[in-house]
Amino acid sequence: MRWRPGLRAAVILGMFLGMPGVPAAGGLGAESFVLANGMRVVAVPMERPGVVHHAVYYAFGAADDPPGQSGMAHFIEHLMFNGTASTEEGEYKQIIGRNGGSTNAYTAADVTAYYATIARDRLETVMRLEADRMTGVVFEADNFEAERQVILEERLQRTENSPSGLFREQLRAASWQAHPYGRPLIGWRHEIEALTQEQVEAYYRRHYGPTNALLVVAGDIDAESLRPLAERTFGAVPAVGEPVPQRPAEPPHRARVTVEMEDPRVVRPRWSRQYRAKGYFSGAERESATLDVLAAVLGGASGRLRRALVVDRKIALSAGAYFDGDSRDGGFFLVYAMPTDDTDIVDLEAAVNAELERVADDGVTQREVERAAYRFAAGEIYARDDVSGTADFVGRTLVKGGTLEDIDGYIALVRSITAADVVGAARNLLADPITITGILRPESAE
Amino acid sequence: MRWRPGLRAAVILGMFLGMPGVPAAGGLGAESFVLANGMRVVAVPMERPGVVHHAVYYAFGAADDPPGQSGMAHFIEHLMFNGTASTEEGEYKQIIGRNGGSTNAYTAADVTAYYATIARDRLETVMRLEADRMTGVVFEADNFEAERQVILEERLQRTENSPSGLFREQLRAASWQAHPYGRPLIGWRHEIEALTQEQVEAYYRRHYGPTNALLVVAGDIDAESLRPLAERTFGAVPAVGEPVPQRPAEPPHRARVTVEMEDPRVVRPRWSRQYRAKGYFSGAERESATLDVLAAVLGGASGRLRRALVVDRKIALSAGAYFDGDSRDGGFFLVYAMPTDDTDIVDLEAAVNAELERVADDGVTQREVERAAYRFAAGEIYARDDVSGTADFVGRTLVKGGTLEDIDGYIALVRSITAADVVGAARNLLADPITITGILRPESAE
Repeated sequence: MRWRPGLRAAVILGMFLGMPGVPAAGGLGAESFVLANGMRVVAVPMERPGVVHHAVYYAFGAADDPPGQSGMAHFIEHLMFNGTASTEEGEYKQIIGRNGGSTNAYTAADVTAYYATIARDRLETVMRLEADRMTGVVFEADNFEAERQVILEERLQRTENSPSGLFREQLRAASWQAHPYGRPLIGWRHEIEALTQEQVEAYYRRHYGPTNALLVVAGDIDAESLRPLAERTFGAVPAVGEPVPQRPAEPPHRARVTVEMEDPRVVRPRWSRQYRAKGYFSGAERESATLDVLAAVLGGASGRLRRALVVDRKIALSAGAYFDGDSRDGGFFLVYAMPTDDTDIVDLEAAVNAELERVADDGVTQREVERAAYRFAAGEIYARDDVSGTADFVGRTLVKGGTLEDIDGYIALVRSITAADVVGAARNLLADPITITGILRPESAE
Repeated sequence: MRWRPGLRAAVILGMFLGMPGVPAAGGLGAESFVLANGMRVVAVPMERPGVVHHAVYYAFGAADDPPGQSGMAHFIEHLMFNGTASTEEGEYKQIIGRNGGSTNAYTAADVTAYYATIARDRLETVMRLEADRMTGVVFEADNFEAERQVILEERLQRTENSPSGLFREQLRAASWQAHPYGRPLIGWRHEIEALTQEQVEAYYRRHYGPTNALLVVAGDIDAESLRPLAERTFGAVPAVGEPVPQRPAEPPHRARVTVEMEDPRVVRPRWSRQYRAKGYFSGAERESATLDVLAAVLGGASGRLRRALVVDRKIALSAGAYFDGDSRDGGFFLVYAMPTDDTDIVDLEAAVNAELERVADDGVTQREVERAAYRFAAGEIYARDDVSGTADFVGRTLVKGGTLEDIDGYIALVRSITAADVVGAARNLLADPITITGILRPESAE
């Protein structure tokens, strides 16, 4: 359910070849082919003897849930473990487990993914099981209702019982006027409660199938050995899978929005501000790379915000910046901070703003930009130095319309970002009054 | 396109019978019957010799536009004047005009209405024309594109070129998280631009028809004489008209939202605060009547807000309150004010709040409640003392699921509201931190 960057991780693979102190990763060396039924397959060979990560990506996610039926993709994610004509409920996980593997799935806004890490000699077993449940899930009333209760409990734990979960949901809703990104990925409670088995089964039968799916296998594999396995397993599935309907697009925003929530369970206030920004997949490739670098200049342990607000002025316990630029239909540049006990939110906000203005007015050095890019990538490389992280960034990039070439291109792009680019990006952000500010407080200020 | 109260006008008809100084209106005396094809017809006899108002209400409006296709109902409203197999483009209006009548239409969130006021002896002509275009509109590519341009120009004038129009749209969007009330009635520009003739024609063919329509004729008419006319005209239309899909419901709101916009064309700042409230049609009949009375206590020329902020303290140029309680799926209690030049928005907001608190803490007298109810109804009666106003409140009430009995019942309900009810309502509003505040300013305060 967590947002996971796709393209960013690409930086890992190529940017720091030969840089001291950063583990060098080989080039992707990925190979792609398409099965007769339209399913795309990518092999990403990695030096992990005997281990593979197998992941199937469906080219739709929570943002494609039908109107009034939020939670659809996530509900199906749960039901995918509930058995087919040839496997019992829970058997999928047991078979993977018996074979020494692990499996899970996630529902993001743009994509739904099902994956397993397993020994190379059990790969075909996983492929057979995954191909089987691609169209073969058996819907059964008792299972359906039981799964609904599991999902409602998950929503209770992650959202309703969590002030920050609830607040995130409110901020998300206030950030979008027409686009379904405004809905929670797990779904609104009342819509999860109202989903019928008929609706869910109909959605599954209509959209799940090879033509909407992408397989990525990373690790001890190559295209040549993957192809016959893929043809025997996924290749046997009929060419079904209608494209999902086009999503409503977002109109221009004209007003500044502030979202404030108080909750006695909150220990410390939190402040954040989102600037609307096009993302990589909206065609803003260079802007996207620039905002990734700006986020690294401002954010992180040695970023300007932490140095100024936490270390020097001691008005914040934490402060940072982040660019959410990997969503298919646009994203946000985010700055945030958590004040110390005797700091007013208004002063905190002014201090964050001052740092953005300092970039815009006084500039940054090329050296600072290079170090920021280095930090940005280094953070990613340690987080994703495995078969699953590699497969996942390839899968998420391709399924959103990116290409293997985009991945390599992004590396060159980030390398080409200059101090002037970063200053320009900061100026653009500050020139836009149409922001979304979030304030979460321990208790009412009134 | 304007919000027009339905039930409120009911108060006119019965509440002040015999009250000095308020024109007495007779009881409704409406009679209702259903045609064989499912179309409901209501005759409202009024003493207007030789004049009738004829209005057809479709039981869906802009809130029922398909997702990503906002502007659908309004687009069809325009196309309904564009000719059928037996009338040319614009002929409908010309025929009505030649016969001394006038005609128009509107698209609201819950309902679309087409109406004409005409001489009694031309009633059948109108009915024939209206029945004809109920299913007989001819779609033609040139007309369709021309009408799109007319609609985009309308949107430009009402919304994009109007800071208050734009701001209203932003506030509306921020007021709803899942329910389509958050969309503009006229539609988002990019969605109007993208509507295809095929989509619009399919929607029209699917939903327009007698089973989704209600006819109200008010004036020199009774059910006995209306019935044969209705059978000859609307009765000849086949029983088509699928119900529109159920709308997404609104989840609970958890955060306070502030929407701020600056525009150099704005002359004076405006401040408003909306409290979420169930409306009459959500089953909150008594609460709805109470909020109507509270709005009259606080708002209007002699309401508390104007007296305190404008007359006594001179910090506002205007101030008032309003209850939007006639929407099918819930509404808002609204307080608003426009500051004088030397009044800060923060002080203005505090002053409005203080008046609400004064009701909650110090109470209101029964006499003040009675006078407020009197003012509330008097304002309505003068605005609606005609055949069109009468037909419209009947039509809008019935088409949203209300009954002729509800209309009479509402009168008794408003009469029964006590000072304690009003105080309770004010306390409930103040106890709810989850409000929506709107601030429109001449220029940036930053």
